[in-house]
Amino acid sequence: MSTATSTQILLASRPTGWPSPENFTTTTTELAELAPGEVRVRNEFVSVDPYMRGRMNDSRSYVAPYALGERITGGAVGRVIASADGTLAEGTLVLHQHGWSDTIQAPAATFSALPEVPGVPSSLHLHILGMTGMTAYVGLTAIAQLREGETVFVSGAAGAVGTATGQLAKLLGAGRVIGSAGSPEKVALLTQKYGYDAAFDYKDGDVAGQLAAAAPEGIDVFFDNVGGDHLEAALAAFNDGGRAALCGAISAYNATEAPAGPRNLTNLITRGLRLEGFTLGHYLHLAGEFRERVTPWFAEGRIAYDETVVDGIENTVEAFLGMMRGQNTGKMLVRI
Amino acid sequence: MSTATSTQILLASRPTGWPSPENFTTTTTELAELAPGEVRVRNEFVSVDPYMRGRMNDSRSYVAPYALGERITGGAVGRVIASADGTLAEGTLVLHQHGWSDTIQAPAATFSALPEVPGVPSSLHLHILGMTGMTAYVGLTAIAQLREGETVFVSGAAGAVGTATGQLAKLLGAGRVIGSAGSPEKVALLTQKYGYDAAFDYKDGDVAGQLAAAAPEGIDVFFDNVGGDHLEAALAAFNDGGRAALCGAISAYNATEAPAGPRNLTNLITRGLRLEGFTLGHYLHLAGEFRERVTPWFAEGRIAYDETVVDGIENTVEAFLGMMRGQNTGKMLVRI
Repeated sequence: MSTATSTQILLASRPTGWPSPENFTTTTTELAELAPGEVRVRNEFVSVDPYMRGRMNDSRSYVAPYALGERITGGAVGRVIASADGTLAEGTLVLHQHGWSDTIQAPAATFSALPEVPGVPSSLHLHILGMTGMTAYVGLTAIAQLREGETVFVSGAAGAVGTATGQLAKLLGAGRVIGSAGSPEKVALLTQKYGYDAAFDYKDGDVAGQLAAAAPEGIDVFFDNVGGDHLEAALAAFNDGGRAALCGAISAYNATEAPAGPRNLTNLITRGLRLEGFTLGHYLHLAGEFRERVTPWFAEGRIAYDETVVDGIENTVEAFLGMMRGQNTGKMLVRI
Repeated sequence: MSTATSTQILLASRPTGWPSPENFTTTTTELAELAPGEVRVRNEFVSVDPYMRGRMNDSRSYVAPYALGERITGGAVGRVIASADGTLAEGTLVLHQHGWSDTIQAPAATFSALPEVPGVPSSLHLHILGMTGMTAYVGLTAIAQLREGETVFVSGAAGAVGTATGQLAKLLGAGRVIGSAGSPEKVALLTQKYGYDAAFDYKDGDVAGQLAAAAPEGIDVFFDNVGGDHLEAALAAFNDGGRAALCGAISAYNATEAPAGPRNLTNLITRGLRLEGFTLGHYLHLAGEFRERVTPWFAEGRIAYDETVVDGIENTVEAFLGMMRGQNTGKMLVRI
């Protein structure tokens, strides 16, 4: 076997506030010969996700912080290019959590073989048919318990989870779906491509007023990717018995001082509301249900998606920072 | 029938911030002859409750605001002293919502006959065996879904709901129950009389620190009567999968400007927490279950209670204001 190398992105220092390129280092190492039971995978796509920012802090969270000097781990999809294990043959498409590298070598058990479906690009396993789509599905069903005909508000709706959420809400029976996004272009996409009935630009300010105008009869379900003033606006707009699935709080991820919460939490009591946070790790038992319900919708062409693709492992940090600044439409990916 | 009078307390003006005696007027009127279908009830006890403060505002809430110039309505227990209706004989003990008056005359259908159990004072139907006890029960069971062995934190634990909550939590299987209260005397009562395993004085400050010390292994359930820094402290102390039943927010009731919410709401996401507000009106279908489970515990002497009793309808406003300031231990009542 000829000498192979792996280029990886490591966490060099913990960001304070917004991360910058100096917080990361790129290193290229030679790979050893495969040990028995190992495979070598050449990645096709590497995922950059908001939750990674939380893991760069050294604080208690639902997953352990990244260690300094180690590779940023996370979702990626690639193909086996060499195998010393009977279960994964060369050429197999695989999903894994080894993260930010172009080539990875590890025990075969740390990779999952993926079905290769004609017309389904491998990148979809990193979003609409993977964790992203399932996050939307779990939030709407298991957490918010969406019922037929209800009005749904999705914050940060032009992101990877948000674009999936609006469409799945409709397919699950929602009456009216409203989204917020951070630019006029994204707002237009929400109603023109992603099936939202109404959308507004939160950078125009007055989120509560814009939401009230878009949902004159109030909202029943809130799927929150943003937190902050979006949560306060939703609490004001909720009908009695409303439910929020709290999925993300991108507004707070880079704050060095924790921002104060909404001033209208007492609405929880007077209107009988529920706020529930979740991370997908506790709902993996719903993966089968998710695939069974959503794959046919996808096959029927009823689910649109966008990808923002950056080329080259050396541009991964730039892709991550761009995603944090909201420069992506749909799922942000690095193509190797 | 000799001429009878009714002394009532009316809302004269809407309080801004803390209510004061000027917001109320006391009026005594002669009662007309009983019309067919009416009864006249002499109250024994009249209830003053935190939720009444909310109804004094002219704002959307779970019950309509009080009208200016009209009687403050709410729970009371009394005895029929004259009847022009076949269903309620003179002498019957009744529960009703006619509120702050010494004598009330109204259609018989607006009163509910109460069982007279030896050793059960009539006042208990205004708290431990009535709405108060049921609020504690519903919050712990239907809302927070308390499980065997869990650690429970109750804020404002020396109040009417709080004293019931700690005891019911234990009877429902909680492992450890922690309460906060607003004076050293109340704190002592919590552990000596009300079965709390630990208690602290929130007026000593650092609610988060005191809670962490009392619950070194974290909390699983939070029953909140206070809001504000108590909610923030609970969010910091929650174990993964924790649930909060939000019952009251006495810290916010008299604020003229809505206070900011907790700064650590993102813990909802990272720890998979749930905050759910409730008012008893939506859970009245659980009244039978509540009475079936709790009455035997009471009969076995396993539920202690306190009452703070003020005498005389003319002192009702004082009783209400005292309750808002935390001067009561257990249920605040006006004895007629």
